[in-house]
Amino acid sequence: MSVEFKEIQNEMAQVEECIRSNIKSKNSLLEQISLDVVQSGGKRLRPAFTILASKFGKKQGENIIRAASAIEILHTATLVHDDIVDRAKMRRGRLTVSEEYGVDMAVYTGDFLFTKAVLMLSKDIETDKLDILAKGIKSICEGEVDQFLGRFNTELSVLSYLKRINRKTAFLFGSACALGAGLSKCPENISRKLIRFGINFGMAFQIRDDINDYAQDEKTTGKTTNNDIVRGVITLPVIYAMENCKDIKDKILAIPHEKGREWDFASEIRELVIKNGGIDRSAKVLEKYIERGLDVLGSLPVNVYRDRYESLIKSLGVAD
Amino acid sequence: MSVEFKEIQNEMAQVEECIRSNIKSKNSLLEQISLDVVQSGGKRLRPAFTILASKFGKKQGENIIRAASAIEILHTATLVHDDIVDRAKMRRGRLTVSEEYGVDMAVYTGDFLFTKAVLMLSKDIETDKLDILAKGIKSICEGEVDQFLGRFNTELSVLSYLKRINRKTAFLFGSACALGAGLSKCPENISRKLIRFGINFGMAFQIRDDINDYAQDEKTTGKTTNNDIVRGVITLPVIYAMENCKDIKDKILAIPHEKGREWDFASEIRELVIKNGGIDRSAKVLEKYIERGLDVLGSLPVNVYRDRYESLIKSLGVAD
Repeated sequence: MSVEFKEIQNEMAQVEECIRSNIKSKNSLLEQISLDVVQSGGKRLRPAFTILASKFGKKQGENIIRAASAIEILHTATLVHDDIVDRAKMRRGRLTVSEEYGVDMAVYTGDFLFTKAVLMLSKDIETDKLDILAKGIKSICEGEVDQFLGRFNTELSVLSYLKRINRKTAFLFGSACALGAGLSKCPENISRKLIRFGINFGMAFQIRDDINDYAQDEKTTGKTTNNDIVRGVITLPVIYAMENCKDIKDKILAIPHEKGREWDFASEIRELVIKNGGIDRSAKVLEKYIERGLDVLGSLPVNVYRDRYESLIKSLGVAD
Repeated sequence: MSVEFKEIQNEMAQVEECIRSNIKSKNSLLEQISLDVVQSGGKRLRPAFTILASKFGKKQGENIIRAASAIEILHTATLVHDDIVDRAKMRRGRLTVSEEYGVDMAVYTGDFLFTKAVLMLSKDIETDKLDILAKGIKSICEGEVDQFLGRFNTELSVLSYLKRINRKTAFLFGSACALGAGLSKCPENISRKLIRFGINFGMAFQIRDDINDYAQDEKTTGKTTNNDIVRGVITLPVIYAMENCKDIKDKILAIPHEKGREWDFASEIRELVIKNGGIDRSAKVLEKYIERGLDVLGSLPVNVYRDRYESLIKSLGVAD
């Protein structure tokens, strides 16, 4: 999903500039690593969600650009820390900070970026907006810890999975909309709808990502597939497939004991997940969230920004 | 230095309660780890600095308790992340989070605590106060990264060392005072003095800590001594001693290549540092910061809070 946001091209260019100019540090390596990681080709979906939401309000201003930029910096901070936990070697086609500079620099780079995001919002924005950002990272933390502690828990329910991805991913998309809507003084009922759209988009976004980990090969996604299960992360496709095939459970539980052979196991599990309808059933849930998102959009004022939201959420469909 | 703050006993009890009640999480392990680490016997110096500073202003209120608690939670967050980088096994007589629960949980616990601190201040406090907090953590990050990157750099100058500890330690003591003074509506000239006192105290505090790493044995400090040099951290005593004794430099540079024998090297370096006046000369610098702090106090209104500041900074003297 490569996106150009032509309706908000101007604002998105300002976001880039704002991100760049805000990553300043007295320590030049910290600045360089931070700049590298924040400019390493993210799709800028979250800041776009903030800008698009702001178009439904009557006030436009620089603080919206700053909020959008802060959301992206915050998101990057969480990625840097997640890569430590996941022991990820690559992200967006390049070495992760923890792989290239060590865990230590990754810890500090994440802290530094988080701090930058807070500083950007603490300048001239009401504190309730900052609250949104802080709650966002708290939610991500809780979701990630939940995922970390639930590794190899083959008893994970669909409901627990949905709660987790809500915290881990959807909440921040909701927050991005909340910031844009709040700062642009959107009417309360519009604002609520935008946030609801953001959350439904985020749910769909994460489910699509989790499906991709089983369905696609590395070339298509630019990411290593079968990554989740090797790390013991139980996602929707595998939860559904386990209901039809008890074998999967045993194979998952064997992974931590099969050092060196874990990728063979993962590959077998992947085939079983596909064969046992894990992807098809997950795709149905994905479609449900896309539908819900489209429903919310249907009650919003008609404009090019709504159209962009629509094409973004439609692009998450498995047929896309 | 064990302290009871009898002049602000009531407020400090409220700080404890505020810290406890704010560490709530949807994830019970995260909550438990966070509570454990934040209640593991820290001296609460930083929140005391906020409360004491607020006594020089005319407004008292719950937001001062909250700010003091947030400063302590923030400080704890940085300790948890520092322990990852230092690979510290013990702190305050117990296992560190990274040692007991792994680096992963330590990363998230630090993030979670930092987020909590931001949330506490974003409730009803003007954003410029939050700015103080965010700048505090940014400064700590930069100081720690500087220290991390400067490991085994035997060319470190006294000036660079002082800059580093200013960022790493002194800034947060200054911030603690700034929050208390600001929230209590201190007159501008008093506020400036309180911040200056906090910074001088922080400098003295860190120099004393760095001296202790060479001068005292484990029983006295409850910390492992010679820790700094084994990790390659160059501090004031060793910088001064190197000026008189070139041998020290060679021994320091040998440490990374002497796995298993690093503690023997550290022990030899310690003796050379003491013999070559490293501690005595550092103690003179320490006394200078204590003097400066006392000077600032001398121009503040006379009250029991000023007396407490005075006894706190005097307790850092090497004779103490």
